[in-house]
Amino acid sequence: MTLNKETLTQVHTAIEPYIHRTPILTSQSIDAIVGCQLYFKCENFQKMGAFKMRGATYAALQLSDEQRSKGIVTHSSGNMAQAVSLAAKSLGIPAYIVMPENAPQVKKDAVAGYGGIITEVASNVKAREAAADIIAAEKGAHFIHPSNDMDVILGQGTAAYELLSVHDDLDYICTPVGGGGLLAGTAMYAFHFGNGCKTIAGEPLNVNDAYRSLEAGVILENETSDTVADGLRTHLGYINFPIIQKYVDKIICVEEDEIVSAMKLIWERMKIIIEPSCAVPLAAVIKEKESFKNLKVGVILSGGNVDLNNLPF
Amino acid sequence: MTLNKETLTQVHTAIEPYIHRTPILTSQSIDAIVGCQLYFKCENFQKMGAFKMRGATYAALQLSDEQRSKGIVTHSSGNMAQAVSLAAKSLGIPAYIVMPENAPQVKKDAVAGYGGIITEVASNVKAREAAADIIAAEKGAHFIHPSNDMDVILGQGTAAYELLSVHDDLDYICTPVGGGGLLAGTAMYAFHFGNGCKTIAGEPLNVNDAYRSLEAGVILENETSDTVADGLRTHLGYINFPIIQKYVDKIICVEEDEIVSAMKLIWERMKIIIEPSCAVPLAAVIKEKESFKNLKVGVILSGGNVDLNNLPF
Repeated sequence: MTLNKETLTQVHTAIEPYIHRTPILTSQSIDAIVGCQLYFKCENFQKMGAFKMRGATYAALQLSDEQRSKGIVTHSSGNMAQAVSLAAKSLGIPAYIVMPENAPQVKKDAVAGYGGIITEVASNVKAREAAADIIAAEKGAHFIHPSNDMDVILGQGTAAYELLSVHDDLDYICTPVGGGGLLAGTAMYAFHFGNGCKTIAGEPLNVNDAYRSLEAGVILENETSDTVADGLRTHLGYINFPIIQKYVDKIICVEEDEIVSAMKLIWERMKIIIEPSCAVPLAAVIKEKESFKNLKVGVILSGGNVDLNNLPF
Repeated sequence: MTLNKETLTQVHTAIEPYIHRTPILTSQSIDAIVGCQLYFKCENFQKMGAFKMRGATYAALQLSDEQRSKGIVTHSSGNMAQAVSLAAKSLGIPAYIVMPENAPQVKKDAVAGYGGIITEVASNVKAREAAADIIAAEKGAHFIHPSNDMDVILGQGTAAYELLSVHDDLDYICTPVGGGGLLAGTAMYAFHFGNGCKTIAGEPLNVNDAYRSLEAGVILENETSDTVADGLRTHLGYINFPIIQKYVDKIICVEEDEIVSAMKLIWERMKIIIEPSCAVPLAAVIKEKESFKNLKVGVILSGGNVDLNNLPF
């Protein structure tokens, strides 16, 4: 499909019955600290607790009736596992979820609660991918990648669409970047629906493959997964990377303590629960606050699924 | 003043410019657990993070210009200290806050941040009351009691007014009860603006002076302050008790573990931060859920000021 205002709006229309139109919150006290006007798009209040519901739903909706009857499959230890399960449940189709055997029980329970059929494998990417391939072959299930899939990317961008439909005068929209689906989708919508709105991202310095890939012009991998922002340990894909190259203005790298501080700031001042990955864009804006002075900055709060018994503060 | 729909509406009109109209949230997953429809009035998103802003503001607004110029005084280690400070700041008048010397630094900082002038005293009620009396005498400041004050009671009840203005078909409204101001105020508004809406309260079993006082027909005191619900350790007053006797249907006592479970349930499912005291009404509704089956129950979520470094789970 040609990407323009009309087709991007159709993406939103398609998923609208299956998602929450999440609130946009503001905080005078955080604005005062940062020195700009922040508009937080609260995907932590999205169904299953994260923006991933948008992309999973849109990808599932693209399947034919025959494909749907055979179900969808993904591999994830995190929010995509829940998103694919709940999207499949919404459409009345099977979901096969490959999870690492050491995934927290609470996440396995959540997936099972949404009706996802779990296959446990060793905790490494090759084992996960192999298991998903086998399920796709045996069941005929359609594989949905958590971020490197054009339909997923389009779905994730609809949070920015909703934000810009209320605040069309934003100077910037900032997201976290892990796999790159949310960032690529947001950037496309900001390009088409913003008025000169630039898309930027925050990325943990420890896993800054996106920052380094943009600098190098080719996809580079992370050498470690050592970050509190557990949702951002994944790497960029070949579908979202060129979109990010084309439409994203800048990626700001942040330290671990800056992520935890930003997370705590949102918890304390806004009284809402966000996961560590979700604090990364605010940490980025705070880090370079001089460049956002008195501007209007949208922040996609990506999710709120955090283990309350294992907080980083 | 005569209490009727018109005068109670005027209370809300008076404070409206100084407060947030807080959102009303629902949760399908908690409804499924409890078996009724719950409407959460989110005073954790109120200015300074609690409903106390309403009562403090209304009480301060009743003062003459001369009284205002001399300021207001209260004693509190908790939310009322912040509420009186911020209400005074909103009106451009001085606030004198007597706090126990062992109050958490974060609370002292919050009061000072709102411009409150702090006097630290020993951590007992007599020392607090004496210090407040001295300030009232020396400065001519007007003393505002956190709960046993008709203006405070009227102000606190406006959260229920806002809730009932959207959902006039509630069967019950449930609040926590500590000092009794929120409960008494809520009950008056529910009586005048509900359609047969009954007011009930949750109270920690360990500090259930309100429950026992209602049973006995006279105000009884607590023998301990041993509860995780730190905002509910206070005791009923002679102004709010007769209102509670007249208008409140029932008080449900809950155990400490039930409070912590309800708090965690709201954090996990609703992704919002509430303080332990604020979880008490949901704990109460869960405890007696059979009696609320399929009914519509409003829950006043009283506040979100919690020490993130000292969580009960």
